[in-house]
Amino acid sequence: MKEIRIDSINNDIVIFAKDRAKRPMDKMNEENEEKNKNEYNQKCPFCRGNEINSPDLKFKIEDENDWVVRSVNNKYPIVDKFQDNIYGNHEVMIDTYRHNGSFYNMSEDEFYNMFLMYRNRYSDFIKDEKIKYVTIFKNYLRKAGASLNHPHSQIISISIIPPDIEKEVNISRKYYKDNNRHLYDDIIKNEIEEKKRVVNNSENFLTLVPKSTKYTGEIRIIFKKNIRFEDIENNEIRELSKIFKNLFSNIYKVNGDLPFNIFIHTHPKNSESEYLNVHIHIIPRKNSFGGFELSTGIYVSSIEPEHIAKKIKF
Amino acid sequence: MKEIRIDSINNDIVIFAKDRAKRPMDKMNEENEEKNKNEYNQKCPFCRGNEINSPDLKFKIEDENDWVVRSVNNKYPIVDKFQDNIYGNHEVMIDTYRHNGSFYNMSEDEFYNMFLMYRNRYSDFIKDEKIKYVTIFKNYLRKAGASLNHPHSQIISISIIPPDIEKEVNISRKYYKDNNRHLYDDIIKNEIEEKKRVVNNSENFLTLVPKSTKYTGEIRIIFKKNIRFEDIENNEIRELSKIFKNLFSNIYKVNGDLPFNIFIHTHPKNSESEYLNVHIHIIPRKNSFGGFELSTGIYVSSIEPEHIAKKIKF
Repeated sequence: MKEIRIDSINNDIVIFAKDRAKRPMDKMNEENEEKNKNEYNQKCPFCRGNEINSPDLKFKIEDENDWVVRSVNNKYPIVDKFQDNIYGNHEVMIDTYRHNGSFYNMSEDEFYNMFLMYRNRYSDFIKDEKIKYVTIFKNYLRKAGASLNHPHSQIISISIIPPDIEKEVNISRKYYKDNNRHLYDDIIKNEIEEKKRVVNNSENFLTLVPKSTKYTGEIRIIFKKNIRFEDIENNEIRELSKIFKNLFSNIYKVNGDLPFNIFIHTHPKNSESEYLNVHIHIIPRKNSFGGFELSTGIYVSSIEPEHIAKKIKF
Repeated sequence: MKEIRIDSINNDIVIFAKDRAKRPMDKMNEENEEKNKNEYNQKCPFCRGNEINSPDLKFKIEDENDWVVRSVNNKYPIVDKFQDNIYGNHEVMIDTYRHNGSFYNMSEDEFYNMFLMYRNRYSDFIKDEKIKYVTIFKNYLRKAGASLNHPHSQIISISIIPPDIEKEVNISRKYYKDNNRHLYDDIIKNEIEEKKRVVNNSENFLTLVPKSTKYTGEIRIIFKKNIRFEDIENNEIRELSKIFKNLFSNIYKVNGDLPFNIFIHTHPKNSESEYLNVHIHIIPRKNSFGGFELSTGIYVSSIEPEHIAKKIKF
């Protein structure tokens, strides 16, 4: 049983999903996550050979040996299809068969297969008539909200437009009405001109440290073309895989095994969202917000974005 | 030099305060904060006898021996008075002279002196013509953003109305226009009737676990009268001190030495905010948000507020 409630004093939306308290947690504390991992872990439900512990297969890609990526129903879903007011679907996408894989050591081909899976599941999820939005995200390490070590991402569809998405859509629409230009086109143009916050500029994507973000160290990858996520082509997925390989390799050189979240902001279904470009937020989980940020919604940063971009550009 | 920037895709407000990267950090990691603390620590700038390391005294209360609470300029301010676009003031309020004090062991009298200091500093800060809002908050333990162990709170005035405050003010005003009743009056009435989320109901304050909050385990203390924070009377401060003593004693029994943030939401200066009641948010920092929350602005909770209220009510 899920329940959706609005915080009456600030309109925050909260989903109550009691069953999630029961989900298993790998033994790891924040300072000392599982170490000396091998490619296979007997106890891991996401490893090759242990598929009996992650049934409800929805998609897989195989090579000559066995599957390389795999998407299954989430056993402890945030949303499900049993109610109309808070309807949705929730799958776990296994990024790679390797238990000891991570964005910091995955090959370009591994990223490629992972993104093919992202596109496949997204295309499938977005077709459901009852849903309004599909979100893809990844939590890496406990500090970023991960409960299991095996590299995995998540995809959730939901019957409401999330407030953060609505906000971005509204801002991009207003910008167009005020300026008769697209916000994301202007960001791309200005950042390429100013150059100092650009991490990488490739044919179809601009990777940058935002001029302003509430998350110190955030990196954004902006799709240059205004396409829907399900329409991303194979050559663009190849390009994105190269970017991820290089980007995470550089982040690791600077920060080591840093916890992070990744999420892809895509277009809501059936809404006037044509002024938004798909973009990926990569959020390092290094610092905690304190009372000032929680109290005000104003965020404090003590590191210049330009300084961060310089260290990780490629 | 401070700089204020708006995140152009979502309008988040970010203050760049580079000097804060230099502020000293007590040696402690998240799992192992300073232990076996004594009432006095030779290296602590906030201890009695070490006042030379926390000069710029703005306020103090003394007993027959020495000072018991003390407010000083923050050496690493988030805002300062050198610029007009992002103008403000920032003091550190030392909650108690005891280095080993904490909200979990402070006496009712210690809370009383602390709240007298809060009111004094608030009254002083709010008078500045250039400021629009004053926020009081506290970070307890590193996980909640604290950099020093000695018990302390912070007060910041700022020349803009923070977005989270504006949002709460707008919601309370709209509620009045739609219903011809005050939102906070209705919350107080309904919660007392429903009873199951009430932690404590005293003459001037209602302490409760909100029916919905993005922070699992949040506790709110709502002022029943619609007064401005600077107008709180001594007898009300005494009542609030009793509540804090009992509340934190019960939180400790259930959760142990839990990191938390506290912040007081007060009225902006010179704005139509008469529909807002002052309230205190107490946020435990037990769980981390994951990618779903960061991506969508929708929060997931797996524990019923009623269950939490039952465990800590008094």
